[in-house]
Amino acid sequence: MFVEFKGTIFGILRWQWQSILLYTLMSAAIVVLDHFFGLEMLHLQLPVAPVAVVGGAIGIFVSFRTNSAYDRWWEGRKLWGRLINSSRHLCSQVLVYLPGPAEGADQDPPLPSELQRQIVRRHIAYVHALRALLRNQSLMGDRDYEAFLEPREAERVARESNPTHALLQTQMQAFVAENDAGRLHDLRLQSLDETVRALLDIQGGCERIKKTPFPRSYGFIASRLIGVFALLLPLALVGTIDNEWIAVPITVLVCLAFTLISEAGRVLEDPFTMFWPALPLSALSKTIEINLRQRLGEVDLPAMPKPDDQGILM
Amino acid sequence: MFVEFKGTIFGILRWQWQSILLYTLMSAAIVVLDHFFGLEMLHLQLPVAPVAVVGGAIGIFVSFRTNSAYDRWWEGRKLWGRLINSSRHLCSQVLVYLPGPAEGADQDPPLPSELQRQIVRRHIAYVHALRALLRNQSLMGDRDYEAFLEPREAERVARESNPTHALLQTQMQAFVAENDAGRLHDLRLQSLDETVRALLDIQGGCERIKKTPFPRSYGFIASRLIGVFALLLPLALVGTIDNEWIAVPITVLVCLAFTLISEAGRVLEDPFTMFWPALPLSALSKTIEINLRQRLGEVDLPAMPKPDDQGILM
Amino acid sequence: MFVEFKGTIFGILRWQWQSILLYTLMSAAIVVLDHFFGLEMLHLQLPVAPVAVVGGAIGIFVSFRTNSAYDRWWEGRKLWGRLINSSRHLCSQVLVYLPGPAEGADQDPPLPSELQRQIVRRHIAYVHALRALLRNQSLMGDRDYEAFLEPREAERVARESNPTHALLQTQMQAFVAENDAGRLHDLRLQSLDETVRALLDIQGGCERIKKTPFPRSYGFIASRLIGVFALLLPLALVGTIDNEWIAVPITVLVCLAFTLISEAGRVLEDPFTMFWPALPLSALSKTIEINLRQRLGEVDLPAMPKPDDQGILM
Amino acid sequence: MFVEFKGTIFGILRWQWQSILLYTLMSAAIVVLDHFFGLEMLHLQLPVAPVAVVGGAIGIFVSFRTNSAYDRWWEGRKLWGRLINSSRHLCSQVLVYLPGPAEGADQDPPLPSELQRQIVRRHIAYVHALRALLRNQSLMGDRDYEAFLEPREAERVARESNPTHALLQTQMQAFVAENDAGRLHDLRLQSLDETVRALLDIQGGCERIKKTPFPRSYGFIASRLIGVFALLLPLALVGTIDNEWIAVPITVLVCLAFTLISEAGRVLEDPFTMFWPALPLSALSKTIEINLRQRLGEVDLPAMPKPDDQGILM
Amino acid sequence: MFVEFKGTIFGILRWQWQSILLYTLMSAAIVVLDHFFGLEMLHLQLPVAPVAVVGGAIGIFVSFRTNSAYDRWWEGRKLWGRLINSSRHLCSQVLVYLPGPAEGADQDPPLPSELQRQIVRRHIAYVHALRALLRNQSLMGDRDYEAFLEPREAERVARESNPTHALLQTQMQAFVAENDAGRLHDLRLQSLDETVRALLDIQGGCERIKKTPFPRSYGFIASRLIGVFALLLPLALVGTIDNEWIAVPITVLVCLAFTLISEAGRVLEDPFTMFWPALPLSALSKTIEINLRQRLGEVDLPAMPKPDDQGILM
Repeated sequence: MFVEFKGTIFGILRWQWQSILLYTLMSAAIVVLDHFFGLEMLHLQLPVAPVAVVGGAIGIFVSFRTNSAYDRWWEGRKLWGRLINSSRHLCSQVLVYLPGPAEGADQDPPLPSELQRQIVRRHIAYVHALRALLRNQSLMGDRDYEAFLEPREAERVARESNPTHALLQTQMQAFVAENDAGRLHDLRLQSLDETVRALLDIQGGCERIKKTPFPRSYGFIASRLIGVFALLLPLALVGTIDNEWIAVPITVLVCLAFTLISEAGRVLEDPFTMFWPALPLSALSKTIEINLRQRLGEVDLPAMPKPDDQGILM
Repeated sequence: MFVEFKGTIFGILRWQWQSILLYTLMSAAIVVLDHFFGLEMLHLQLPVAPVAVVGGAIGIFVSFRTNSAYDRWWEGRKLWGRLINSSRHLCSQVLVYLPGPAEGADQDPPLPSELQRQIVRRHIAYVHALRALLRNQSLMGDRDYEAFLEPREAERVARESNPTHALLQTQMQAFVAENDAGRLHDLRLQSLDETVRALLDIQGGCERIKKTPFPRSYGFIASRLIGVFALLLPLALVGTIDNEWIAVPITVLVCLAFTLISEAGRVLEDPFTMFWPALPLSALSKTIEINLRQRLGEVDLPAMPKPDDQGILM
Repeated sequence: MFVEFKGTIFGILRWQWQSILLYTLMSAAIVVLDHFFGLEMLHLQLPVAPVAVVGGAIGIFVSFRTNSAYDRWWEGRKLWGRLINSSRHLCSQVLVYLPGPAEGADQDPPLPSELQRQIVRRHIAYVHALRALLRNQSLMGDRDYEAFLEPREAERVARESNPTHALLQTQMQAFVAENDAGRLHDLRLQSLDETVRALLDIQGGCERIKKTPFPRSYGFIASRLIGVFALLLPLALVGTIDNEWIAVPITVLVCLAFTLISEAGRVLEDPFTMFWPALPLSALSKTIEINLRQRLGEVDLPAMPKPDDQGILM
Repeated sequence: MFVEFKGTIFGILRWQWQSILLYTLMSAAIVVLDHFFGLEMLHLQLPVAPVAVVGGAIGIFVSFRTNSAYDRWWEGRKLWGRLINSSRHLCSQVLVYLPGPAEGADQDPPLPSELQRQIVRRHIAYVHALRALLRNQSLMGDRDYEAFLEPREAERVARESNPTHALLQTQMQAFVAENDAGRLHDLRLQSLDETVRALLDIQGGCERIKKTPFPRSYGFIASRLIGVFALLLPLALVGTIDNEWIAVPITVLVCLAFTLISEAGRVLEDPFTMFWPALPLSALSKTIEINLRQRLGEVDLPAMPKPDDQGILM
Repeated sequence: MFVEFKGTIFGILRWQWQSILLYTLMSAAIVVLDHFFGLEMLHLQLPVAPVAVVGGAIGIFVSFRTNSAYDRWWEGRKLWGRLINSSRHLCSQVLVYLPGPAEGADQDPPLPSELQRQIVRRHIAYVHALRALLRNQSLMGDRDYEAFLEPREAERVARESNPTHALLQTQMQAFVAENDAGRLHDLRLQSLDETVRALLDIQGGCERIKKTPFPRSYGFIASRLIGVFALLLPLALVGTIDNEWIAVPITVLVCLAFTLISEAGRVLEDPFTMFWPALPLSALSKTIEINLRQRLGEVDLPAMPKPDDQGILM
């Protein structure tokens, strides 16, 4: 995600050079046709009004799409925000609900027991696993994931069809075992169950956004309508301006405006990629890791993630 | 659902040939009238401005409808996303809350008891039943549904007025029986009750979308306004262009733009059909099946559903 | 509610004949004025541009209203969808939480006790009472309501200032009595309390929509602006067209387009009437009745409600 | 709130006479300038197109504000709807959860105990207090508030910085005292706690709407842009119409249309005033009072509130 | 936040002088070019229609951004509203659930115990800490924060990576210790756990808004499109008006209208700054402090925060 945008007009040109080239060629073809044969002779000149109506329809369509894409992006961000909240809650619940070790209870914060440490670390692995899966990255080999699980568990989980669900079920097993052993009160187990439910909702919400592309028909119709517009507009313009060649930059500019609005939305459609407008999942999961490890009393923590030279935080 | 859209302009033409033909005939009729009698003579020529106002009104109307239809589609997808979440939660709860068999507890994951297996399999049947009912498919004969229930139960349930509710009540009976027998703690029963409530909300939400058509008046008014527009536009165009026949493709194009925006919405209105923009319920329910059977420790699982040659996932 | 709309243009004309007549008279008056005196002579001719700006403002206003009215209609439908869900949940809870009779427990589904039957039937009466009250129908004399309560209770409840709340309180009394008698576990009572809370929210939501008209000022301003527009448009048109009489149908058409968009919204504003776009409360409450009676093991059930000849389901 | 709007065009003129006068003076000044000096001579005539673009921008801005203001109004209504629901729930919970008196239990509905009566009456006072505070009315001297509390408590509470919160805490103290005394089950106390949480959310939501004005910059920018438009439009009109004086009514009409749309929103911004579009808090709180007193078995109830002669319900 | 806006047009000019200067220079350059060389000679004159289409596209884009920014601002306000609600709930729960001191229980309100006082005061510190962190203010040295914690705790917490989470965990430790000691019932602990969950959600929501800038691409594209428009509009105007110099104020005015709409949104994007449209976090946290201290029976309370001379409340 761009935290500080240092965009330039050249950046836009580089980004959309294909569209710009296409619109240039299409409008230039019309102008050449006019120059050598005369559109009037060909009876092809158009009035401006219906072309403007088409322009309005495209504007409505393109803005609807941008709107919906932004909603998906913001929903993705909300889900990761809730992941942070629920992670903190789970961590605090584990630390205060489960019994700590006999020694160390007088420290502030009290020392966690081995089980508490194990559960919280497994949750950190869960967060990194969700990040990796949403970005289509392999779990095995992901250092952040492997660092917080025992090698055997890390490998077994990575082979599951849904590794994150498998991790949550392991957590529930640990809670129930403590409950059965009389070390975790029934009501506290129920509170932990609520937190697991919240985590399942969050992970399912992310998977839904990831796996459900925005209806393809919208993008297809939008780009085709803009293409047709790049042919109609010069047909309407050449008759009304002195210098017919000016129709080319005007057409490119108008179509580019529509394309930019449309593309500004499209790039937000899947908020879980490694493309620059995507959400900074690495930074978010690192933040959770740091917060939770500090709760465990660890001191050699990694640095908080910072945007790179280009102002991008991933 | 199209996962990778390979649409072409020919696809659009094939899809909307009726509208295109209609608009062509209507505008051609006007042009012919002009050609042989002269609209000026008939005092029928129109100014462009009021026609543009009608165009704007149509644009507003059509985009509102598209917007609302997309909301229904996305709500349907959200409900099935929540179905995945709740299914995973139910499965995990059943596996860790109910007592497992004496042997097999030391395995990882531990072996499920016969009752646990039965409940999870009944839930898989529930998911397939919901998928079938939303698509107006018959339960009896649906292999995926029948495979996870005993034949007698499958048949009895299929005759119910609301088979999915009947299945959930059977689940609740099983939970309460375990609770009465002292094998399921009261609070864990309550957590399961919460999950059943979530499932009832999800299934009811899907039925609501399925059974409540978008107010018919909107579609009717929209298509009639576009039809009137296909008559007005050529009346306004023929006087302002050299070659009156160009009024025909222009009219078709403008009306087709409106129609496409309107239709792009209409096809999303009922997200539970077998039409290509509909939601991939088969794939979603298969995914749940695979996830849950893996939790039961089964190994001969079906393959994850993939889009077909045309990029369609159903 | 129209399930299959068989609307015709004649239907629209019949529905909006008053507006059409008004717009015809207003625009004809302008044209007559022009014909006999000449607007140019009267210096009353208008340019088109400011008239188009007024048209745009009307479009914005009218579409906002349609949008909000549709939201009310859809919220009403959602509330009745949740009523179905909560009714099913209540029914299942009553049947599995309260003790059944000694005999009949081995049947599938088990026979309900007299108390279970009474509570579920009272809930069916509750649903019919809510339907009747939202439609301003009298409770006494409503067969569906009276059939599921003892005559004395039916009469006492009907005299209450809020009969539906009274029925829910009776249900709560029955649950608490069972709890006090040790036949209903504390936690199960709490689950039932949750369901009653959900029902109170649903009924209150319906009453809110019913009793809060959409701010009147919107409708008033909208219809007045359209009326003014019916005078301005011909003033702008007569000078730009050959045949001044064409200004009349054009004006009627443009104003009718605005009126239809506005009216398409207005009829959705109160979704609980007996007008055709209203919600099919009779069908929905009958569906709940059938579902719940089947759960009680009853067999002589009424038929599922179907749309009538005109495609209307009420 | 207007329940039956009997608005007239004269009502609008009276309401907005200041704006109308301003627009008249501004446009008349331009026309006078043109009449005596000639705008052409002054080289001040404007083309219509950029003026129309400004008009479009104003339309977008004004409709956004109307939309947001309506959302605040509707949210306020929803909060009071939820207050009705929660009040009914609290009342039913108090009546069935707390023990009734020894005698009178066989009546239908059973007689409430002194404590039950006191708690329900305190809740009625709570509702009236919330209504008074939202309308900036004094609590002391408010008959409806004082009638349901003991004089000493009424006075002490009225001096608090947040009287409604103080009342809710007194309720919680009563519940906890019953619980400590063994007359209210733990789980039932928790249900009551939930209801108090809901009431705190409702009252906080109302206070938020009351105390957070809509960003002032929006209204300021909107009215200034409309003012500028009242100068630009006649500059563009005088050259295009025969009778320059017609520019005055046209300008007034167009600007008035924008102003009405803007004002229709502004009056909804604070839904808790005594202005006519505001919510009928008096009627709503009276309805709650009647409902709850009837539950207590009282019979000499006030009449249900009705709209006054002008169709206004407050 | 401006509570009473006393804005002037000069205020706008001062605020946006850079944009105004830029638009003036750009349009003046075009007019100078025309004056000395003649755009017609340079064949650079443009028709108005495509420029208007670009204007429409900008309007759509800019209003979408304003809309989304306002939503962020309003969500921030909702979160702080919920913080008020949850703070009151937590305070009431602590005061009635935890045992009070032996003496003082007969007072009205009863005297709080030392532990109750400590927990409520720590919560006030929590609110002030959240306010300070959202505004990037240092905790150490913040009087409001330090006043409600013991110096050692205040310092330890301020060094944490997430101080607010650390405070909430301390609260949970205190609740659990009371529960373990038998002075807090299990179910009441669970209610307090719910409140902590709500607080974690609120604080996480605020952090999400604070740390996630609105997609930078939107602002960049918007400002560039407005810039291009400031060049295109005079190219289209100079040919259609007598006095070419009028193109300069018209261009500035149109572009300024777009800029104002865009900026009215931008300033709402981060609602937690010290800029004037931001939320009055100081006043809100002071209100919570006063409410809660009054619950503790304290009497020497600070005054309720009031807007300053300029009508600004921070």
